[in-house]
Amino acid sequence: MAVIRGYIAASLDGQIVSGDGSLDWLFKYDDMDLGEHDYRLFLKGIRTVVMGRATYDFIASEQSPWVYGDQRVIVVTSRPIEEPKGPLEVYNDVGSLIRELRALDDGDVWMLGGGKLQMAFLERGALDEIEIYVIPEILGSGEPLFPLTGHRASPTLVSATAIEKGCVRLHYRFS
Amino acid sequence: MAVIRGYIAASLDGQIVSGDGSLDWLFKYDDMDLGEHDYRLFLKGIRTVVMGRATYDFIASEQSPWVYGDQRVIVVTSRPIEEPKGPLEVYNDVGSLIRELRALDDGDVWMLGGGKLQMAFLERGALDEIEIYVIPEILGSGEPLFPLTGHRASPTLVSATAIEKGCVRLHYRFS
Repeated sequence: MAVIRGYIAASLDGQIVSGDGSLDWLFKYDDMDLGEHDYRLFLKGIRTVVMGRATYDFIASEQSPWVYGDQRVIVVTSRPIEEPKGPLEVYNDVGSLIRELRALDDGDVWMLGGGKLQMAFLERGALDEIEIYVIPEILGSGEPLFPLTGHRASPTLVSATAIEKGCVRLHYRFS
Repeated sequence: MAVIRGYIAASLDGQIVSGDGSLDWLFKYDDMDLGEHDYRLFLKGIRTVVMGRATYDFIASEQSPWVYGDQRVIVVTSRPIEEPKGPLEVYNDVGSLIRELRALDDGDVWMLGGGKLQMAFLERGALDEIEIYVIPEILGSGEPLFPLTGHRASPTLVSATAIEKGCVRLHYRFS
């Protein structure tokens, strides 16, 4: 059964993008050495990437190339995607998507985000683990990593490590 | 010059009380062994405790005794406090309070909270350090540790340590 993983950076005040929809605050940590937790290593264990529409639109608006050559990409959206930036599938219904993901046995799933979709997964018991890279920045506005939907959970801490540049890696398991 | 410190527990989704104004989610971690970071040791270095009105009202509504026998307590509020639970002073103006606190040289100041008052201090450069005890609970509602006021800051990580029961201590310095 596929493990569904979160792997995401958040500000100290719990935001994943700043209020202007930007990741500029994060880019200055781009050269941070994550060692065994490096994004490229993480991606090697991933077969399927799931993202919401706003996350896809952000990626599509960037100049950077499509990096998911080896992965199956799923965008959860109710609106059609014209001229997709890379090969992708579109899902509308989170419930049926989760059933399909749970049946996979070809590698792990990355719940890339954003926060709302991640919370929809969490509420359905479909987020198994999350690695949070807490960046030492207070943004004062933005989109939260954990939107306040009323859902409660008591995850288990796997590890907590200071990495570099004041970034802290928090690893939790939900189960 | 007095060092103005934060020392506070927050949920993984960044709340300091749950949506019903309760700390029940935190009480189950009461017997956590914080070792050198124990609250009672922390309080020994503190001469002045500053809190907002909601925090005071919460403390006043509890059955527990007044624990600030050795500390000077300041409540920031614009409404009078009748029958105070313990010896305290009332301040209305944050700016003049901060000027007074900065002039102290009889021990450190604990910015007890809540989030709004703490942010008012932070915005005025009057929060020097903060210790955050990240509890492995997602509350889904509540009052945030860092209200989104638009204020940005880049604190310096001093240390990050997993303690007990999945709690993580994050220590930052603002300067």
